Amino acid sequence: MEFIIEATEDRLAPTRGGGAEVRSLARAIDLLDLFDDLHPTRSLTEFVEGTGLPKTTVLRLVGSLSQRHLLSQRAPGQYTLGARLLRWVRLAHATWDIPAAARARMRRLSDDTGETVNLYVRQGLSRVVIAQEESRASVRNVVEVGVELPLIVGAAGKILLAAELHLIDATDLHVDEDTRARLRTAVVAVAEQGYAASHGERELGSSGVAVPIRAPSGAVMASLALGGPTPRFTADRVASHVTALRKAAEDIAQIGLPGLTPRPSDRRG
Amino acid sequence: MEFIIEATEDRLAPTRGGGAEVRSLARAIDLLDLFDDLHPTRSLTEFVEGTGLPKTTVLRLVGSLSQRHLLSQRAPGQYTLGARLLRWVRLAHATWDIPAAARARMRRLSDDTGETVNLYVRQGLSRVVIAQEESRASVRNVVEVGVELPLIVGAAGKILLAAELHLIDATDLHVDEDTRARLRTAVVAVAEQGYAASHGERELGSSGVAVPIRAPSGAVMASLALGGPTPRFTADRVASHVTALRKAAEDIAQIGLPGLTPRPSDRRG
Repeated sequence: MEFIIEATEDRLAPTRGGGAEVRSLARAIDLLDLFDDLHPTRSLTEFVEGTGLPKTTVLRLVGSLSQRHLLSQRAPGQYTLGARLLRWVRLAHATWDIPAAARARMRRLSDDTGETVNLYVRQGLSRVVIAQEESRASVRNVVEVGVELPLIVGAAGKILLAAELHLIDATDLHVDEDTRARLRTAVVAVAEQGYAASHGERELGSSGVAVPIRAPSGAVMASLALGGPTPRFTADRVASHVTALRKAAEDIAQIGLPGLTPRPSDRRG
Repeated sequence: MEFIIEATEDRLAPTRGGGAEVRSLARAIDLLDLFDDLHPTRSLTEFVEGTGLPKTTVLRLVGSLSQRHLLSQRAPGQYTLGARLLRWVRLAHATWDIPAAARARMRRLSDDTGETVNLYVRQGLSRVVIAQEESRASVRNVVEVGVELPLIVGAAGKILLAAELHLIDATDLHVDEDTRARLRTAVVAVAEQGYAASHGERELGSSGVAVPIRAPSGAVMASLALGGPTPRFTADRVASHVTALRKAAEDIAQIGLPGLTPRPSDRRG
């Protein structure tokens, strides 16, 4: 069977065919995104305010999501994420989980440096944390696992962009030409020096240092990053963090990240 | 703000407004459901065969799901669940997870009886396992956590139905009147005896015994069930299983299942 692979590319325009389908899916995702650690339960009023959608649209959407058990009604008008999600939760976890040895190495890096360690992968024009080991310091950086952050902001994003320079030309980066030119210069520099450091880019007072983790082929699988409060990220510390990150990235590459590399069996079907 | 709560009820007809929206969401869910433990990666061909949808529809759907990173392309034409799902992993887990003490009690029940222990909740006209402790026997029953099973089949389903007898009249049970009458008789008997046993209902050779777990108010929060191969579920064993289940259900009720009971804070917003 032959398929037009381009239709599944990252940069698929949302308007190319099935616009309504993309829109309703996007709305459903936006609604589910309103749940977070501080808001395990949401009301209909909050759905309307949080999505900015008309009340009737929200009601229809909540109806569909409840019917498919992606939402669960805990009390009248009060919703939690549905138990139905547990199935994908388990599978997504199994797909993206990293080996215990790699996680232990991240833990050791966090203990050695005193900062939070994140493992980022690229998903389209976003970066997503798939594993995290938190700093034990009382002031620490925490990024939510699974949340999308822009690729063009922060040290880990630069590392992932440096591996795919063509993405800087993506029309849906939504940046003006000046910004695009500056980004290109910065990312090319990152590619040359092999690490990235950022201060206050994503959030004021928050700094990051990142290096790539490479597959045996040399391809960048992920970005390993240290994040913490800017006052702790002095030039001296950044230099020693880069050294520590590089050693850890090599060790993790040795251990392997099976979830991030195509396996021969994937060629089936 | 006033809402028509009925529109979010379980039995909302799929055709009532936004039919296209419901359909595209249902299709997306069906496609994501093709992933399981044995199939962490799926090809476009498998999506077409698995969903029964036209190739063009599948391509559009895969495009939308990839764009929102619910699908991730691992190799050309090969997809895994997207890292984006990891965000809900933690949240769904936090929402539906049961206390460690309750899980330990389930473990003990499994060790005492030699069978797999499942904790089921009702989601609409389905039942879903939210926690499981597997039997250590080599022949054992395993139901996937988070997968929807019909409420009208199996011991745990009967227990959950017995708590909401009106559901037997639900038009979307899709049973004929004879079946409905037999179901009512069986479920009323289950309500009276306080436990349910089934043999080969869901799957030939598979048996189950289940009891309710009640909130302090007396409302049924969940069903605690033992499942295993039918030859091990003799009348004697079923009787002793019921006793063991009842003790465990009482202990778990004492521990509490905070994820399954409305909390005062849910009334906010």
